[in-house]
Amino acid sequence: MNIFILNAGSSSLKYQLMNPISKKVLAVGICERIGIDGVLKHEFGEDQKLKIDVSMPTHKEAIELVLRTLTQGEGKVIDSIDDIEAIGHRAVHGGEEFASSVIVTEKVIEAMKRLIPLAPLHNPANIMGMEICQELMPGKPNVAVFDTAFHQTMPDYAYMYALPFDQYTKHGIRKYGFHGTSHFFVSNEARNMLDKKSNTRIIVCHLGNGSSVSAVLNGKCIDTSMGLTPVQGLMMGTRAGDVGAGAISFMMSQEGLSINETLDIMNKKSGILGISGKSSDLREVLEGMQEGNDRCRLAVEMVAYNIKKYVGSYVAALDGVDALCFTGGIGENSALIREIVCAGLDGMGLIIDPTKNNKKRSNARDIATNSSAARIFVIPTNEEFVIANDTYKIVSGLDK
Amino acid sequence: MNIFILNAGSSSLKYQLMNPISKKVLAVGICERIGIDGVLKHEFGEDQKLKIDVSMPTHKEAIELVLRTLTQGEGKVIDSIDDIEAIGHRAVHGGEEFASSVIVTEKVIEAMKRLIPLAPLHNPANIMGMEICQELMPGKPNVAVFDTAFHQTMPDYAYMYALPFDQYTKHGIRKYGFHGTSHFFVSNEARNMLDKKSNTRIIVCHLGNGSSVSAVLNGKCIDTSMGLTPVQGLMMGTRAGDVGAGAISFMMSQEGLSINETLDIMNKKSGILGISGKSSDLREVLEGMQEGNDRCRLAVEMVAYNIKKYVGSYVAALDGVDALCFTGGIGENSALIREIVCAGLDGMGLIIDPTKNNKKRSNARDIATNSSAARIFVIPTNEEFVIANDTYKIVSGLDK
Repeated sequence: MNIFILNAGSSSLKYQLMNPISKKVLAVGICERIGIDGVLKHEFGEDQKLKIDVSMPTHKEAIELVLRTLTQGEGKVIDSIDDIEAIGHRAVHGGEEFASSVIVTEKVIEAMKRLIPLAPLHNPANIMGMEICQELMPGKPNVAVFDTAFHQTMPDYAYMYALPFDQYTKHGIRKYGFHGTSHFFVSNEARNMLDKKSNTRIIVCHLGNGSSVSAVLNGKCIDTSMGLTPVQGLMMGTRAGDVGAGAISFMMSQEGLSINETLDIMNKKSGILGISGKSSDLREVLEGMQEGNDRCRLAVEMVAYNIKKYVGSYVAALDGVDALCFTGGIGENSALIREIVCAGLDGMGLIIDPTKNNKKRSNARDIATNSSAARIFVIPTNEEFVIANDTYKIVSGLDK
Repeated sequence: MNIFILNAGSSSLKYQLMNPISKKVLAVGICERIGIDGVLKHEFGEDQKLKIDVSMPTHKEAIELVLRTLTQGEGKVIDSIDDIEAIGHRAVHGGEEFASSVIVTEKVIEAMKRLIPLAPLHNPANIMGMEICQELMPGKPNVAVFDTAFHQTMPDYAYMYALPFDQYTKHGIRKYGFHGTSHFFVSNEARNMLDKKSNTRIIVCHLGNGSSVSAVLNGKCIDTSMGLTPVQGLMMGTRAGDVGAGAISFMMSQEGLSINETLDIMNKKSGILGISGKSSDLREVLEGMQEGNDRCRLAVEMVAYNIKKYVGSYVAALDGVDALCFTGGIGENSALIREIVCAGLDGMGLIIDPTKNNKKRSNARDIATNSSAARIFVIPTNEEFVIANDTYKIVSGLDK
């Protein structure tokens, strides 16, 4: 029972081969620079690595290469593609059509095509990945796991923007949220870690190069920080997060920018990179701060302050909190960010234990003091497991 | 000791004549439709009212008419303009130049002119009011009281947007905040009402047709919901408040709108009006909700949910809360909005008393239960008093 997990982007393609029952990962890799030249990085076995430089004019050649690499030669981990039970696809935008994972059918692809305006870079690549897998592995089921699905339980007063109502009915303009598989995985792990089993109020801070926060009540998402697109919410590596419309308009007029140019700046040159002027990588900016760089100090304080305010707002939205969870590269690894975020939240029942917080470990753990009313968890995320598990359950009929 | 208070807009002009020591208001009124035709509404004495329809081609004729009305004829309240000690002007945008009220000098007017790009509708009207008063009442001191001044104590990590840093250094793009005189007045009243005298943590919800929230620590503002312009933050009568940049850009492309047209929609056709489709006036929308109109229900829930989330985020920013204050037309009068906002905030120490909340009174009052750890105040705002008092103190040298 192996699930082939595919995350197809516009010029790259990430994959894993995973057994969803044992959670064993047989291989993990990435094809980069598709359509430019092409390189495959493949990891397998006990830390074995393979790098292949080979032309990949399209995603089809890339997927063919991955399937060959999995079944033949040095990087081989299975005998043939018959050992692949099904393919699980990471799909970005499911709009209001998909509140859970689904078998990829003609109708699903039609719906994903209708949603392309909402995710012009991602959905076309996702669809391409699905169609190529149908072609190369005929008869094998494909499952789409949407980044937006987990957030579909948000109530209307949380997902609506206060724009004229017909912007929603005509164009679907509302908050959708992203990183849904991560928010689902981490909040679900947190529920299992809590003694309390009902009315669980969980806040998940997914902090990586892209970052978002979600509020999860009894396993259902009630709010999240990203919006129609991922540029909204927290300040991120290169994304600006929340910025007033007046500021956007003023920047456009002062710089003579179009809205697309402005959005490009807000997606690629803002956030930690824009403030620090040094890097989009928080680790480098933390180093800069320690060396006395004031813009690095500012970037770090802004990152933490932004998260802290979202945590407070979601404690209000959830009418309290049972667990605050940190995940993602920054959430799992930056004790300092966790410390600044949690400072002064004792009034909300969140007291961090500095010793536990600073201990370097990679497993899921509780870093709150024993006397803290609510728990503070660090939980490594595992989006691939959610994709593999959803795919397995759907193709086995276990989701019914 | 009378202070003439002037709030000059682009086609209207509000005024009051007030004794800042006794707080007695001698007259209050408004000139409307300046440059179109013109009407003066003047209130004085014991609920006496006067309405004069007369052509006001420019603000100069309007102010001349107001001064004549104050000193002659039916609406007379003083013998001559010699009974006016000084003029206090409401000024909208003081940028980073003004953290407190100042005597209007040539340099002040120069600075306000430099700030016109940040407040293209308001600052020119404010400057015009100042220059006309200098001309019509030569020798009398004019004082500028800025809407942004109270928020100048925000730390950089609260006022900066996560845009490229040079957008701040080149164009002054940052959060400034507005309604500063109201946030100052109400937070100051709240401090006086609290038993606690140090480390006071106060949240002010100024909820009117325009709305904003501020977090005030020990009398100093540390954060506020409006930004570079007033369109940011809470959902308001016709303003959208917080909307993601991706949603703004998507609306522009779907509707073929320019950024100025979009901003116009976000300022004038969004918010409570845009969602309800009925009115920008919350009272009418509350009625609609009671009649079963679902879009009115949605608008009311969005308004309250938005405020609740800001309250939560500022409790986090302040490391706790001693008083949550409601002011402005909605804040002072809508028991239902106060009730929904406070529901479920007991974990933060905020417990509303339904009986006290529903009692119709117009004075400053505490509507929290006796057992509530923090206070919940309803405090009628008085921006004109702040303007009169600042003006009085500055011209008397009492501000030193």
